[in-house]
Amino acid sequence: MNAMKSRFTVVLVRPEHPANIGFVARNMKNTGFGQLKLVGVSGIEEESYRTAVHARDILGSARFYDRLTDATADLEVVFAATSKKRKSYSRLPFEDAVEKMVHFSDSMRVGLLFGNERTGLTSEELKYSNYRFGIPQATEQPSYNLAAAVLITLFCIYTRLQHLPDGFELERPLTQDEQRDTIRIILSKLEEKGFIHKTNKKHTTEMICDLFGRLCMTKKDRRLLLALFSKGIDL
Amino acid sequence: MNAMKSRFTVVLVRPEHPANIGFVARNMKNTGFGQLKLVGVSGIEEESYRTAVHARDILGSARFYDRLTDATADLEVVFAATSKKRKSYSRLPFEDAVEKMVHFSDSMRVGLLFGNERTGLTSEELKYSNYRFGIPQATEQPSYNLAAAVLITLFCIYTRLQHLPDGFELERPLTQDEQRDTIRIILSKLEEKGFIHKTNKKHTTEMICDLFGRLCMTKKDRRLLLALFSKGIDL
Repeated sequence: MNAMKSRFTVVLVRPEHPANIGFVARNMKNTGFGQLKLVGVSGIEEESYRTAVHARDILGSARFYDRLTDATADLEVVFAATSKKRKSYSRLPFEDAVEKMVHFSDSMRVGLLFGNERTGLTSEELKYSNYRFGIPQATEQPSYNLAAAVLITLFCIYTRLQHLPDGFELERPLTQDEQRDTIRIILSKLEEKGFIHKTNKKHTTEMICDLFGRLCMTKKDRRLLLALFSKGIDL
Repeated sequence: MNAMKSRFTVVLVRPEHPANIGFVARNMKNTGFGQLKLVGVSGIEEESYRTAVHARDILGSARFYDRLTDATADLEVVFAATSKKRKSYSRLPFEDAVEKMVHFSDSMRVGLLFGNERTGLTSEELKYSNYRFGIPQATEQPSYNLAAAVLITLFCIYTRLQHLPDGFELERPLTQDEQRDTIRIILSKLEEKGFIHKTNKKHTTEMICDLFGRLCMTKKDRRLLLALFSKGIDL
């Protein structure tokens, strides 16, 4: 069970309230997860240790990043929680997202991204994910608070892992860094060809990130994609 | 959906931290539940309103009780969350408890009891429940915090209700007051007959409460039980 859950890393992006970081750590401990990355936070404050209760070790081994791109670089699959529908980004239904999360192999590095308490994840931040998911809720407003969103996600992964049959695993993708690099190449080819231009750039870029992000690209996929976009496809 | 969830009342027993009461209200709002009872709390403090965010209306309509027996009197089925195994009280696995919760009819009054942050529900407080349930967790310590335990329970009820086929309902039990009254009669009969005596009183009383509590006694059950215990059974 521990091996199964060590594949997961919780990534909090620009969390604002130290109390929430502690609550997240406690929720991680309760559900058996241990790896925490913090983006835009330079250290752990006393208030976080206070709300973490018996989960201070998780705060003690948390890693800090200035930029999301560095926090996700070594991960292989990234899921981003977002309560809002986005124009350019697709979202998986929650249960489908959980199914995907638990079906990657134990040795895979899976990131779970949660955004700032007020803003959630920005469009720009969603680029660093393969999949987006929403958590079912009864009301439009308010959205779940940060620790609540993390808790529901981890609890569902935890209980789903306990009921999982053996021997079914999804194929191993490239690291996020390699996946993004491939998408960058595709984007620049599309610009060269004039498919992406000044007026459609933001929206089209996001849609391309969404589309090819969802592939969770393997080495083989990359080879094919690069061949397609450099040699060819007449757009 | 709203009708389906109006059957549920969250009962917080001796909550200590006003912030937690607010978090519970927000979690209730997110998952679509509205009725809150507070035992051992005389009013809502500013701190609770602060953490409730958009769920202040739930705090505004919360009801207050000095005694758990009064808070549960008009309910028909009561489930109590407890992280600890108890000598005298059985516990349902979490998923079974959720199945039961969602299968009572819409018009039924179902209480969900959550104890004090440090102590949980005492043995004495568990008497006021038909069923006990634990929430799966990966570590023995710490247990889920109060708002987290409420959130997981409500989220699972909420998502389960959405997938429920129509037309299956459990039979309507007596009110808690009537159920407890029946158990009290049984207990006094057992004392008369010497089955319960000074040295076994606490433990046996709790086991009887557990056993007959789990029946979720209907009118018909009570008639039979009272007949059995007054006319007869040769203990």
